[in-house]
Amino acid sequence: MASRTVGVIGGGQLARMMIPAAVELGIPIKVLAETPGMSAAIAATAVGDYRDLDTVLAFADTVDVITFDHEHVPQAVLRALVERGIPVRPGPDALQYAQDKLLMRQKLGELGLPMPDWASIESASELGAFLDDHGGRAVVKTARGGYDGKGVRVVTEPNGADDWFTALNEDGRGGALLVEELVGFRRELAQQVARRPSGEIAAWPVVETIQRDGVCAEVIAPAPDSAPRAAGIAQDIAVRIAEGLDVTGMLAVELFETTDERLLVNELAMRPHNSGHWSIDGSTTSQFEQHLRAVLDLPLGATGASAPWSVMVNILGGPADASLADRYPAALAEHPTVKVHGYGKESRPGRKVGHVTACGDDLDDVVFQARSTAGHFDA
Amino acid sequence: MASRTVGVIGGGQLARMMIPAAVELGIPIKVLAETPGMSAAIAATAVGDYRDLDTVLAFADTVDVITFDHEHVPQAVLRALVERGIPVRPGPDALQYAQDKLLMRQKLGELGLPMPDWASIESASELGAFLDDHGGRAVVKTARGGYDGKGVRVVTEPNGADDWFTALNEDGRGGALLVEELVGFRRELAQQVARRPSGEIAAWPVVETIQRDGVCAEVIAPAPDSAPRAAGIAQDIAVRIAEGLDVTGMLAVELFETTDERLLVNELAMRPHNSGHWSIDGSTTSQFEQHLRAVLDLPLGATGASAPWSVMVNILGGPADASLADRYPAALAEHPTVKVHGYGKESRPGRKVGHVTACGDDLDDVVFQARSTAGHFDA
Repeated sequence: MASRTVGVIGGGQLARMMIPAAVELGIPIKVLAETPGMSAAIAATAVGDYRDLDTVLAFADTVDVITFDHEHVPQAVLRALVERGIPVRPGPDALQYAQDKLLMRQKLGELGLPMPDWASIESASELGAFLDDHGGRAVVKTARGGYDGKGVRVVTEPNGADDWFTALNEDGRGGALLVEELVGFRRELAQQVARRPSGEIAAWPVVETIQRDGVCAEVIAPAPDSAPRAAGIAQDIAVRIAEGLDVTGMLAVELFETTDERLLVNELAMRPHNSGHWSIDGSTTSQFEQHLRAVLDLPLGATGASAPWSVMVNILGGPADASLADRYPAALAEHPTVKVHGYGKESRPGRKVGHVTACGDDLDDVVFQARSTAGHFDA
Repeated sequence: MASRTVGVIGGGQLARMMIPAAVELGIPIKVLAETPGMSAAIAATAVGDYRDLDTVLAFADTVDVITFDHEHVPQAVLRALVERGIPVRPGPDALQYAQDKLLMRQKLGELGLPMPDWASIESASELGAFLDDHGGRAVVKTARGGYDGKGVRVVTEPNGADDWFTALNEDGRGGALLVEELVGFRRELAQQVARRPSGEIAAWPVVETIQRDGVCAEVIAPAPDSAPRAAGIAQDIAVRIAEGLDVTGMLAVELFETTDERLLVNELAMRPHNSGHWSIDGSTTSQFEQHLRAVLDLPLGATGASAPWSVMVNILGGPADASLADRYPAALAEHPTVKVHGYGKESRPGRKVGHVTACGDDLDDVVFQARSTAGHFDA
């Protein structure tokens, strides 16, 4: 039997970062990219629309297992792949919960997992009722299509989501919005696990994620000052979700650590996730290698840390009138121990165009090294 | 300025292992491969003969700097690239010493570096005279074209290299063979350094290399029981060679540690080298990332080890009737902390088709982990 080829739908930086892992492990990898010249272009053997069934089927016929750079492939396309006998990991039954936040909340409720109060609302009056019950403030989310803070809004008035209700009705699907209590949290955490179809699960230590404007800005691994009990709870939550939703491949669970010391599930991602980029340089097995192992149903790798602390800082936007590469000489000269990652993307305000990771024994120094390196790439 | 593209001539596993480093650092990379489907095929934007000037010039026009998977590109081709204004790293003046072992010995002699007694010989009688002076045994090497033990022979009779003399005369070039004393050595070491065109040099710790049948089988980093003085001498030798020969990119110096505690230069390689594969998993900066930084004249990365010990074991030959991938389930399940590297090559007796690296605190355990993992891939 020859090596089985992994096919990745989507050509962004998550697909890109699977490529080094595949090349090193000796696993053939192909990418279906949305357009030419994307981050993962070096492995893009096909370019086309992932919503088009024929495009996806033609690509799938060239690989042995399908996985994803993102969660946007329509259910109809996913189910057609499965009917054709192509392994899809994660499969459509799992992915639906990453694609629809209302479904996700319902399912997590059935599993008895801790999360913010929530409701499915279809009108301003239902929103008003939720606001009345939750101190006059709440978070409204579109069930589908949100990412990096898009499709998320804090509201204080019953008519604060009227435009979204109108849009939902206009596009003919009708449907509801998700409203959640505004949780008083001390910080945000993320717990990653990988799960094979045969059931094996591997977990990394829980990490702290620092968001700015709804976008992940920094990750500290492991989360500082985490009581072993809290770390255990975070892992237990992620394992229960991975098993309960039959996730295969990487799962990231974003968590609120509340001011009263509870952990509540915020969001899910069924793919490698920004909160795990530190693992490329800071863990025996990176989330990207682990994702490949998991979707191929290979034994999972060790998730130990190679240093006591790893800190990842995103390069957001990048230099305004230059490429990342222009800043390499100064950044690399000043920080020879920091790993710089570029995604081969044009700089644009707010866009994730790269990240840096520092590892070491002293958290203050590691934070300084990472932030200072990333600072070289500011606009 | 956009990112500068590195062009690699040669599509073998050394080019392959540059690809993950390039993708992670955000450096575009293109490969001129000898044939389709080689190890580095994922980055092969051209396929053709590296001895053909037009082929190489056409490839060079698509990149910003040229470097190499091997040292076999003819001087005439290299010099034509330089004349065209294309940066070639290492350049032809340096590469000639890696291409011709007689030139190398002459140059190292001029630099006053320690090495075995040697001579340039053109006849059986000259070989006989050398044997008489060196206890009746010596090593004869072809000046050009040898690798992995090929073109190297222990002789005890004056006519022991007659076939090579005949071949040299027949191919019309005439020319000499290299003869060297048979050094009584305790073990073999390798010292790697990287050097930028602007002069900066970075060194890794000296490693022990274990050869079988003239081919590198295992590497232990750092070399066990190395006195700090010996490690310093090894580094000093490599730095003097890198500077004296104007090497840019990676340089590996293979050394004999003699039974009387001297270090003698055996061979040179001006490219990433088997003795440095451990650095992918065991050093802050791998030899492949460092090579890219060096040939782009970017600041070099830190060469600290991420664990006290790293042990690399080559997968030689590979399974006879199967692919490497068939052995992954058992190997990965038993050794979750070991990093397995496959080169995407067909198994063939004696061929380097992959390697494994184990890292850790306890040398005995690390050696066991690496050997046991590699053992899963035996024929």
